Amino acid sequence: MAITVVGHKNPDADSITAAIAVADLLSKRGMEATPVIQGPATPDAAFVLKTFGLATPAIETDATGKDIALVDHSDLAQSMDNLDKAKVLFVVDHHKLGDVTTPNPLEMWVWPVGCSGTVIKAMYEFYGIEIPKGIAGALMLAILNDTVLFKSPTCTDADKKAVEGLAKLAGVADFKALGMDMLKIKGSVEGIPAVDLMNRDYKDFNMGGKKVGIGQVEVLDLGLLDKIKPALVEECKKLQKDGRHTVLLLLTDIMKEGSEILVVSSDASLVEKAFGGKVGGALNSMWVEGCMSRKKQVVPPMEKAFA
Amino acid sequence: MAITVVGHKNPDADSITAAIAVADLLSKRGMEATPVIQGPATPDAAFVLKTFGLATPAIETDATGKDIALVDHSDLAQSMDNLDKAKVLFVVDHHKLGDVTTPNPLEMWVWPVGCSGTVIKAMYEFYGIEIPKGIAGALMLAILNDTVLFKSPTCTDADKKAVEGLAKLAGVADFKALGMDMLKIKGSVEGIPAVDLMNRDYKDFNMGGKKVGIGQVEVLDLGLLDKIKPALVEECKKLQKDGRHTVLLLLTDIMKEGSEILVVSSDASLVEKAFGGKVGGALNSMWVEGCMSRKKQVVPPMEKAFA
Repeated sequence: MAITVVGHKNPDADSITAAIAVADLLSKRGMEATPVIQGPATPDAAFVLKTFGLATPAIETDATGKDIALVDHSDLAQSMDNLDKAKVLFVVDHHKLGDVTTPNPLEMWVWPVGCSGTVIKAMYEFYGIEIPKGIAGALMLAILNDTVLFKSPTCTDADKKAVEGLAKLAGVADFKALGMDMLKIKGSVEGIPAVDLMNRDYKDFNMGGKKVGIGQVEVLDLGLLDKIKPALVEECKKLQKDGRHTVLLLLTDIMKEGSEILVVSSDASLVEKAFGGKVGGALNSMWVEGCMSRKKQVVPPMEKAFA
Repeated sequence: MAITVVGHKNPDADSITAAIAVADLLSKRGMEATPVIQGPATPDAAFVLKTFGLATPAIETDATGKDIALVDHSDLAQSMDNLDKAKVLFVVDHHKLGDVTTPNPLEMWVWPVGCSGTVIKAMYEFYGIEIPKGIAGALMLAILNDTVLFKSPTCTDADKKAVEGLAKLAGVADFKALGMDMLKIKGSVEGIPAVDLMNRDYKDFNMGGKKVGIGQVEVLDLGLLDKIKPALVEECKKLQKDGRHTVLLLLTDIMKEGSEILVVSSDASLVEKAFGGKVGGALNSMWVEGCMSRKKQVVPPMEKAFA
């Protein structure tokens, strides 16, 4: 049976390119493998696929009876439906260890780096398999995306080194310029409905038994969001009414390097505890200086506060 | 803070040598790291440490406030107390993915091979660090132990290749003879109380919300256990009364390559379903031909039956 390779829900550049690359790698290791995605590609992911001429994987949401390779996540809430009725054989990730468990031994490559792409480049090297040019370029952009052009605190030396190596393989001379083009598209908000911005990079988490949703919108200048902020608060409220204890939306200013966090919660004091500040103002929000990474700067303090 | 490197409860050759080796490897990568064990070394582990002149790590059972590297397990039931109050930074394993989760990104090396030692040898190579002679020998014996001299169905080509490489590094000409010496000591049952045999290689699992204990005693000839079998059944019963749905004890005949499984369960039909046979006889047991590996041949069908 072919192995289905899948990233998290709401597939961004890293999740899609990781699925494509790991499927390629497993195929070249002698297994049959197919990349899939759980929903439409985000704007950054679409830019990456188009730039390097890669086909968009088919959408699949049900894991029942399948052999699965998980990339870029290990949380049930972010994975395919019925994962407990599938056989998870591989996990490639760079996040916290989630609540996926298996009855069978498996292969896992998980590193505390800025992007799954960095791990996957090392896997290709470990197995002595050449990285195809298009995949190299896509992995490169995925790393630049996840690390916000190396600015995010999640960025490690391994990520920078991987980008340099991948840029050479892909024949890209000025990777920073290409990365900035991607971030501009990713940060484009003009004419985009609030519900789409809310879902652009949204993930659910289980924190101390409570469902917590955290979305992120990254823009080059927070002022671009001024008009749409009240509508974004309404989207948070809708999600919270739908069975969530708390919904956060990070409005991240890439240039100022910080985030305004919109907070809709049954107990906002937990969020205040997590970030050591006060939620307030017309939008019920707080500014967190230096906060660019959900993974490294938002999820860990939130999990601690909810524990 | 120094990283505490720890294997599963009831530390066997793999758990102890993996803790020693990963602590050595992390130290040489520039971190402070100390191996510990959760209880006294099993006879096979003691033989390995003595043969290669390695110090027995100190016993520690509480993880509170520590930075932790888990080796040879990823299950809470097999780990230190208060692991939720520690920070898990590394996992090196060759089992199924257990229920440990983290709020922080981490480094994981998990492969579907016969022994953590095989993974650790590859880690040394990946990081370009030389394996010390004594640690090479200990890892070699750990692999021979976990794979029952390559006879177990868990054994892979990677395990065989690792043993050959490690034997050279350790300067061991006849690794099979040394491995057999270890298995003789491991399989020695004369004069050993039933409670000690029961605990020799015992692990608790959470299966579909139910606590299930599975122990294993490996001997060169099952006849050696004839007299003590009724006392072993009593030990299973004691453990089951102590809050477990089911307790199994695998009496594995290394030469015949199969196991008699002693069964004490609130619902033995689940065990029968798992192995497709009948539990019966004076000891309430079943013979499972070819069954040598708890990890590969007992835990997966049991988890499926309990799901």
